[in-house]
Amino acid sequence: MKIAIAQLNYHIGNFAQNTSKIIECISQSKAAGADLVVFSELSVTGYYPHDLLERKEFIGQSYAAIDQIAASCVGIAAIVGGPSINPEPRGKKLFNSAFFMYDGAVQQVVNKSLLPTYDIFDEYRHFEPNRQFSVVPYRGKRIAITICEDLWDEQETQNEFGREKLYQLSPLKELSALNPDLVINISASPFSYNQENWRKNILVKNAIKYQVPILYVNQVGAQTELVFDGGSILLDRNGVLQEELKYFEEDFRIIDTDLPSGELQPPTETIEKIYHALVLGIRDYFTKMGFKSATLGLSGGIDSALVLVLAVEALGKDNVRVLMMPSRYSSDHSIADALQLAQNLDVHYEIIPIMGMVDSFEQSLSEVFAHLPMDITEENIQARTRGVLLMALSNKFGNILLNTTNKSESAVGYGTLYGDMNGGLSVLGDVYKTDIFKMARWINRDREIIPENTISKPPSAELRPDQKDSDSLPDYEMLDQILFDYIELNLSPQEIIDKGFDESIVLRTVRMVNNNEYKRFQAPPILRVSSKAFGFGRRMPLVCLLYTSPSPRD
Amino acid sequence: MKIAIAQLNYHIGNFAQNTSKIIECISQSKAAGADLVVFSELSVTGYYPHDLLERKEFIGQSYAAIDQIAASCVGIAAIVGGPSINPEPRGKKLFNSAFFMYDGAVQQVVNKSLLPTYDIFDEYRHFEPNRQFSVVPYRGKRIAITICEDLWDEQETQNEFGREKLYQLSPLKELSALNPDLVINISASPFSYNQENWRKNILVKNAIKYQVPILYVNQVGAQTELVFDGGSILLDRNGVLQEELKYFEEDFRIIDTDLPSGELQPPTETIEKIYHALVLGIRDYFTKMGFKSATLGLSGGIDSALVLVLAVEALGKDNVRVLMMPSRYSSDHSIADALQLAQNLDVHYEIIPIMGMVDSFEQSLSEVFAHLPMDITEENIQARTRGVLLMALSNKFGNILLNTTNKSESAVGYGTLYGDMNGGLSVLGDVYKTDIFKMARWINRDREIIPENTISKPPSAELRPDQKDSDSLPDYEMLDQILFDYIELNLSPQEIIDKGFDESIVLRTVRMVNNNEYKRFQAPPILRVSSKAFGFGRRMPLVCLLYTSPSPRD
Repeated sequence: MKIAIAQLNYHIGNFAQNTSKIIECISQSKAAGADLVVFSELSVTGYYPHDLLERKEFIGQSYAAIDQIAASCVGIAAIVGGPSINPEPRGKKLFNSAFFMYDGAVQQVVNKSLLPTYDIFDEYRHFEPNRQFSVVPYRGKRIAITICEDLWDEQETQNEFGREKLYQLSPLKELSALNPDLVINISASPFSYNQENWRKNILVKNAIKYQVPILYVNQVGAQTELVFDGGSILLDRNGVLQEELKYFEEDFRIIDTDLPSGELQPPTETIEKIYHALVLGIRDYFTKMGFKSATLGLSGGIDSALVLVLAVEALGKDNVRVLMMPSRYSSDHSIADALQLAQNLDVHYEIIPIMGMVDSFEQSLSEVFAHLPMDITEENIQARTRGVLLMALSNKFGNILLNTTNKSESAVGYGTLYGDMNGGLSVLGDVYKTDIFKMARWINRDREIIPENTISKPPSAELRPDQKDSDSLPDYEMLDQILFDYIELNLSPQEIIDKGFDESIVLRTVRMVNNNEYKRFQAPPILRVSSKAFGFGRRMPLVCLLYTSPSPRD
Repeated sequence: MKIAIAQLNYHIGNFAQNTSKIIECISQSKAAGADLVVFSELSVTGYYPHDLLERKEFIGQSYAAIDQIAASCVGIAAIVGGPSINPEPRGKKLFNSAFFMYDGAVQQVVNKSLLPTYDIFDEYRHFEPNRQFSVVPYRGKRIAITICEDLWDEQETQNEFGREKLYQLSPLKELSALNPDLVINISASPFSYNQENWRKNILVKNAIKYQVPILYVNQVGAQTELVFDGGSILLDRNGVLQEELKYFEEDFRIIDTDLPSGELQPPTETIEKIYHALVLGIRDYFTKMGFKSATLGLSGGIDSALVLVLAVEALGKDNVRVLMMPSRYSSDHSIADALQLAQNLDVHYEIIPIMGMVDSFEQSLSEVFAHLPMDITEENIQARTRGVLLMALSNKFGNILLNTTNKSESAVGYGTLYGDMNGGLSVLGDVYKTDIFKMARWINRDREIIPENTISKPPSAELRPDQKDSDSLPDYEMLDQILFDYIELNLSPQEIIDKGFDESIVLRTVRMVNNNEYKRFQAPPILRVSSKAFGFGRRMPLVCLLYTSPSPRD
């Protein structure tokens, strides 16, 4: 059977665009002689529409799109993802469905059984799980249609106290009893660098276990925080990879399930994948928000340098303008490094020293603050003055401010709310500082784009004389390991100490993480590249006493 | 049977405090001759611990607390809420449980069957639903223990396309077959002013339908956004109210189920309930965060006036300091009104005019902005200058900045991110402007606390000469109705137009709501008093094209 794999980039709620993309792809597939064209999970709406699924008119528009698409399916079949209304009188109103269509109409609706409701996933909030199984007969083949998580029944729970499994049901076991010739899995699997092999392994295991070929069709493109990486694949019944589509871009390929092409993607370093994920994340956020240009503050440090490189790659150098805002504590080399980078990348830059504005604040506050010692307040005034200037640029020129906070800083609250935490999108909020160094080195692999000094000098916020990050924080090598154990692996402080880390450093780090939930609550959306990013996928109470210590806010 | 109702205020993750509170209450109940003392849902942990439930050590601490409490249960029984580990090899790791304890040990664990997973509720994220039912025999009575949502099986889905029911199962129907003498429901029901009768109605219907008395024990106190209002009740088998505990405060009462006291609470106006909810919300946020004092900006307008009254009520006048920050566009009466209010409430105030700092920003930006017309940028610089000053006070004096944005403004994005949208807690973010006027009038019912002029003058942001809210927004009476229809009732724009509202105003309003998701994404936590507050209970995608229009950000 000739099947077209449509690995497309959708825009949530943009029914007109998603529909015309899908219809165009159907006609292209038909012209090329395909029997069937497969689109990804919730392709009509884009993944994930969240509470728009609770709006009647949203579901109405989705059905209208499905009808329009089905009408175009003549002489070819298509599998299209979208919500469908649950006809039963009890239960959630909707199913997460695959519409199987041909002869100009929807012929069968297959519903998702396993609804991920953990981390960034919220599917049980909106959908009723399917409990009935059947295969779709088409041109002599028996096709088992599954939707994403349906093949993940054997996964262990995300948060293990033991080794148990998350789901009660195995959809593929049920479907396997119906002797399918092919399993199709339509998916919306977001990228995360530390689960990159997990997905393939699950699919391979299933193919081997049930001795059935599996075609996996993923969404590509970013929807705010989530970056879907594509990489659709065909496995034969022995779990051997037969086809593999591109990562981080749209792709389209017509395959013959009986005579696959064997075309695979070249292996890529993890740090390069993260780079591509971030570039796609920036580009899609701007495109889908209807914006073209970005601004950011360039300090001479490595974080803002990296964001600038990524932004230029995503938006083009003419669409990025940077602002340098030296204070009395900025070192000469910081300004020189920032200038050098702006010139290397040929972006528009401006320099506005902040001393005058900071003085004006301090003078205005001098009576209220009389006789009180300098503290974090004065450091924050500098960071917030920069925040005001950057937002002024953003407002005046209609561009989006990119946030430059990294995951290590965000974790321990080493940043100023309404200051350097400002921005429409956090580019590096899910990248640990140690990975930022790696990525900078990778960017400079052929020639020096980021000035060497920016990479090699000790990190500093430069908010007081001779300040270094290491004055207030553990060494980043150690800090990032502790943070990874606590955040990604969910280990307890004691378990981390038992791995050999210093007790007082572990406890202090964990306390900083928990004490700063309130700051992260107001942080911009963060491009997610790991298995556990701050934001929607990690929900923590604010008024909580657990390894916290009440302390003045900053 | 003599039952003690323990309507207490818990602190999430504060096991030491929650446990000692519970143990003290058990000993008090025993001394007073009670057979049984009942605590609310997840009382050991506080409701809702969110992803702390995924941490092994959190569950370990919870079990240790349960053991300690059980050990104190000698000569009396207790029902205590907490998570329990699912012993089955498949499914979610935990149940949301009621521990029935006496003779110094846990005797029976009853698990929650219906797990709310909509609006602010996320229970299926963490818990496996119960499917087995039994009653607890104790001192000659058969007690059916249920947990909150278990009695809400007949509720319609929050977001109706039709008239269907949300749940497949009716726990009380199952339990009723076991002939219970009494149903106990341990609960964590948050307050919302437009569902105030809903809860009682559900309980009454159940009592009548199954001809069984129901004892409902609710949590009281606020956990960040959610305000639990208490109001525990006993209904007889005919659904007649026999006992009713206090609202918005801790309460404790020993009742005789065979000879109830008939003591009920006096009826209260809705606006007064909202007032008490907000006061409790502020007080608990501060207490549970380990803070005593607040700061806020006083403009002379009604929103900040109301927040000040609420803060003084919640924290005491000595724990609130206000800052007045006149600009060149501030009217004389604004400053006079703000001063008058600060004096009426006898709070510490300071005045820092912002002209100098604003000039300093504008001068620094003058080259970059050369030849460009004034626009929203300059208005935002004023709002953000105030934001910097307020945060400086918050940092220097270790108090929390209270946000004064109201729900109408927040809905349409009439506010400046990193400016007047700053704050650790949004006090009025779930209160529409029309209700703010009502509450101000209610506060002034006996004497003028809020200056009459503050209430009666036309609302203005005072960011440019002679600015009025009505220049950019529809009249608040109309705006709030449209917003309520769109946000609380989830009506489509067409349905709102069909009610008789002007089409262009409805479409413009809806567009403003959707265009400003990105601003609300970074807003402070909002005290929730309605059935649909912005924040965690209303999850909307950002990169979404639905009634939006790409436009410059502000």
